[in-house]
Formats: sequence, structure tokens, C-alpha cells
Amino acid sequence: MLDTVAAGVATELTRFFAAARLRASDYGEHYVALWDFLEQASSGGKRVRPALVLAAYAGFGGRDQTLVVPVAVSFELLHTAFLIHDDVIDRDLARRGQANIAGRFNDRALAHGTDSDQAQVWAAAAAILAGDLALSEAHRALAKLPADVDTRLRLLDLLDRAVFVSAAGELADVTNSSARHPLTVAEVITTLENKTAVYSFEGPLQAGAVLAGASAEAIGLLGRYGRLVGVAFQLTDDLLGVFGDAVETGKSVSADLREGKQTALIAHAGTTESWSLIAPYLGKVDLSDEEAEQAREHLRACGAKATAERLASDYSRSAVEALDSAIIPAELRASLTELAHSAVNRSR
Amino acid sequence: MLDTVAAGVATELTRFFAAARLRASDYGEHYVALWDFLEQASSGGKRVRPALVLAAYAGFGGRDQTLVVPVAVSFELLHTAFLIHDDVIDRDLARRGQANIAGRFNDRALAHGTDSDQAQVWAAAAAILAGDLALSEAHRALAKLPADVDTRLRLLDLLDRAVFVSAAGELADVTNSSARHPLTVAEVITTLENKTAVYSFEGPLQAGAVLAGASAEAIGLLGRYGRLVGVAFQLTDDLLGVFGDAVETGKSVSADLREGKQTALIAHAGTTESWSLIAPYLGKVDLSDEEAEQAREHLRACGAKATAERLASDYSRSAVEALDSAIIPAELRASLTELAHSAVNRSR
Repeated sequence: MLDTVAAGVATELTRFFAAARLRASDYGEHYVALWDFLEQASSGGKRVRPALVLAAYAGFGGRDQTLVVPVAVSFELLHTAFLIHDDVIDRDLARRGQANIAGRFNDRALAHGTDSDQAQVWAAAAAILAGDLALSEAHRALAKLPADVDTRLRLLDLLDRAVFVSAAGELADVTNSSARHPLTVAEVITTLENKTAVYSFEGPLQAGAVLAGASAEAIGLLGRYGRLVGVAFQLTDDLLGVFGDAVETGKSVSADLREGKQTALIAHAGTTESWSLIAPYLGKVDLSDEEAEQAREHLRACGAKATAERLASDYSRSAVEALDSAIIPAELRASLTELAHSAVNRSR
Repeated sequence: MLDTVAAGVATELTRFFAAARLRASDYGEHYVALWDFLEQASSGGKRVRPALVLAAYAGFGGRDQTLVVPVAVSFELLHTAFLIHDDVIDRDLARRGQANIAGRFNDRALAHGTDSDQAQVWAAAAAILAGDLALSEAHRALAKLPADVDTRLRLLDLLDRAVFVSAAGELADVTNSSARHPLTVAEVITTLENKTAVYSFEGPLQAGAVLAGASAEAIGLLGRYGRLVGVAFQLTDDLLGVFGDAVETGKSVSADLREGKQTALIAHAGTTESWSLIAPYLGKVDLSDEEAEQAREHLRACGAKATAERLASDYSRSAVEALDSAIIPAELRASLTELAHSAVNRSR
């Protein structure tokens, strides 16, 4: 079932983008290119959110592909939209080492003979519009769903919450980064939960369960699991961003330090006597590999690494405990338990 | 009927923003401020799009406030979202002389002690997210509509077209502004139609008519009228932007020249022998009032002003002609005829 439906999601996205590209061809080559780049942006990921929608739906006995595929597509395109707009906010022209939509339109503008300032305007326009188009289709996929009224309204409320809370988290992430003092660990975790865990884990799991007609109690437990496991994932990502293996993660292990990213690691370090040794490295734009290694040494020595690891494990374990109820079908519980373990036990 | 429903739209928007603000208070003061600024952004305008939805709905005999108000709200919030994202793309911190969302968050960041670069990040984040939230509610208002399935799907298709075509027009507006030669008049008009006329006139009129159960033929005529009258409005706006009275329009009459905005005026001038006299003034960032007046003189002398005025009148007249059919109810035809006249006969 899960494989069939995952293929259904891929097929539906391919169909959607093919139709959009055809339609875009009436509006000039730049708009066709924008849709091409948007399709590429939506196809690079691991499709975690569709997998969660499908797991919850199948886990509660759902069997109708025509219902579950659009819901899975909705959460995937929501994710695509958020990543694209997040990159605009962070002024990134690349994601995971590859030019993103803004980067591609920046190059496209320069190839058309614009100056670099005008190329930035093309880049921002293309990325903002592409995000708007992906966000619109995320809404449309649910709005068109051939489910009964009550189910559709409940799914729309889940999508609404995902958008509302993620925007709050994204805004907090930006305003927090201007804080002159390290955040508390609690502030870091709240931002992770709002910015990512709600739309990536809670929303997809609850949507699948609502669609399958699961009980309110089961939907509540899945939501709690989703927020906890989402935080465990993000805490681990932040650990790998400093202590990981760049070859495995595909990400520089100096970038987060160089940016001064506010993570649980840094929040813990801020409460220790080592803070004055660590602070000078954070946000240092020309941080060398050697300096990054010194910062890592201090983060290990002051217990920040061990604390963040323990925190991630605690969240993963609490997530599993949230499912410890007979109302969660055994097979779903097993696969979500495995997911919670893999959230913290991984090298990439 | 129309006044009652316009009041209904205002009430519904007030209710929506009050609920959002309350919800936002769980996520910190910056998020509450973002919702406050979004509400202000949605309340400054003339509510043209709701008025068109209501006129078409009532014109075809529609009488159900619970159906027409959400549709009108949807198009108004779509407009709000587009204006906000358009300002981000154009890097504007003000609209009509008042700080916009980006401008307000820029000030807010500086008041919180950030540097000017970080303030720009706050500004972009707030405006991108506010646009996403308005766009999301535009979709949600239609998705929740308690209409029959067929009507809801047709309305969703109109909204989808509005988003798709407006994005194409916005992108073309940006890429056109890098053209090293003046555009053709046809290119200018296509961009006006796509960027503004479809979502502002065609979409709202057709949505009101669909909701009232008008015939496919009538819906087709309203769409044609909407595109034509929308272009007439925009051509007139561009004329007022150069030849208007700044006191009446509330807009500088040098700004469009200083920006080098690609209008029908400029497109026509580009085909005349006066072009070499006019071109140096366009996009001149330090254009003086005296230079602006010289540019206006040349635009008059080469016939650009008269041509653009004639073009606007032609579009207005063609819009009225599109309604010359017994299938458009007389009262609706009268009010839309008046609207078409006011599109071109105005000083602000």
C-alpha cells in the first residue's frame, strides 16, 4: 500500500507540473522556466510528509488512493513553498550545494544582460512567486478533495494551523537571530516546534488519521508524537550541523557556527562559564576550519554536546511514549517508533 | 443590498483579524504586530474587488450573504497578498506615502537595536509571511464555502486562474523592466491585463456570476468586460502617474519617470522620432521636477499622451460593448457601464 501511494504522489506531482508548464507556455519563456525550477525544487526531498500522511491513513485502515494522494501532495507542496520563502528571507541562492530558484533566476537575469542589482530583483520575484504558486496548490489540493464536508473542513483546519504556526516560527527564528544574548533552550525548542515540527510531523500525521476516520483521542496522540519527534529531528539536525561529517550530511560543519545559528547547543553553552570562550566564534563570517574545531572543543568541554544529545533522546523517547496506547494500531506504532529512533540515531 | 453586503465584508474581515490576533498572542509580540500590520494593509483600499463580486452576484439575482461575503473576502485578501509581495519584489518600504508592512518591521527591528542590514531581513520576513497568510486565507475562504460541489469547484478554478495569471504578469513586469529597448504597446497591455485585470476585474465579476448561477455565456461576457475595463483602468493610472495632479492622486508625478516604468506612454514614444529626446530622462534616479516637466512636454509633443488617452478610451468603450447583450441584466449593465466611464474619466 505505502509504496503504491508514494508512487501515486510522484505521479500526481508530475501531472500537476506538466499541466502547469503547458499553461505557462502562453505567458513566455521566463514563466515556463519558473515552473521548471519549481518542479525541481519539489522533487529533491525525501517526501517525509507524504510518507507520514500515508502511514497514518493506512495505519487507521484507509484504503482510498483518490483521497490520500491529494492530501499528501498538499503537505509536500506546503513544504516546498516554505523552503523557497525561507531561502528568500535568508537571502540564500543555493540549497544543499545546488542553485535554488532565486539562484537560477539570478543566473538567468545575468545571461539576459542585466546588472547584478537587477538580477537580484529577478531572483526575489521568481522565488516569491514560485512559493506563492506552491502554497496556492497546497490549499487547492485540499479544497478540491472529494471527501465529505466534515472531513474536508477538519483537513482545512489542520492546513490552516500548519500555515499559521509555521509563520509564527519563521518570524521568531528571524527576530531571535538578532538577540544579543543566547536564547534559552526552551526558546530554541519552541521555535523548532513551531517553525518545523507542526507542519512537517503533527499536520501530516493528523491529516492522514482524520481522513481515515480515526478517533479524536488517537488524533490527539499523533499530534503530540509529531511535535515531539519533530523537535528530536531538528535537535539532531543542529547537532549534525556542528559535529556531523560534512561528506555524509552534505552540509558544511562550519556554516551554522559562522552564521551564529541559535541552537540548543549554543543555548546550553550560554549558561556555562565557557560562554566567553565560545561567543567570539559565533557569527564570525570568516571563521576558519581551525577556529570551528576550537569552538567544537569548547562545546564538548562545557557539556553542550552531551546536553543537546540527551535532549534529542528525551524528545525521541517521549514521542514513542505518546503512542503507548491501545488506540494506536500496532503496525503504525511500530513504524512510528522506528522513525523516532532514526530521528536521533543517524549520521545524515 | 450592495451596502449591506459591503458592510458584511468589513465585518467578516474585522472578525477574521480579531481571531487571528488572539491566536497570534500565543506566539509573541512580533507575531501580533505582524497581524496588526496585515489588517491595516487590508483596510486601506477602496474594496473594488468585493464591490465587483457583489455587483455581479446581486445583478444575477443572488441574495445569500453567507455565500457572497466569503467570496468577496477571498478576492480582497488575494489583492492584499499581491500588493504586499509586489512591494517586497520592488523593495518598497512604503505604499501611498505610508510605511508598509516591510517598512513597519524595518522600524521595529531598528527600535529593537538591530543594525540596518538585519532590519532588512526582519522587513522581508514579515512582508513575505504576511503575504503568505493573506494568500492562505483567500484560498481558505473559498475552500470552506457552503456552496454545492460544482459551484465550489468553479470558484476554485477562477481563483486558481487569478493566481496563475497574476504571477505570470508580475514576473513579466520584472523581466520587462530589464529590456534595453522600449516595449511594444501590445507587450505593455498584455502585462497590465495579466498582472492586474484578471484578478481584479475578470475574476471577481465571474465569481459573483458563477455564485448566482449565471449562464456560461454571461460569465464569458463579464470576463471579457473585466479584462478590457481593467486595462482601461491601468492605462489611466499610468497616465495619471505622469500627467496627474500629485495632490489629487496622492502620488508623485515624477516617480514613474524616475523609475523608468514601462507604460503605454513610453512604448508609444519609443516608436517616434522624439525617443532620443525622451529616453535620457527615463530611469534617471536624480530626475528633477524641471526635467520631469521637459519629459512631459516631449511626451505630449510626440503624441504619446494623446495615443495613451485614446487607447484607454478604446478599451473602456470595448468593455461597454462587451456587455451589449440581453443576457446581462439591465441594472448590472448600467452600473458596469458607469464603472467603465469612471475608469478613464477621473483625476485620481
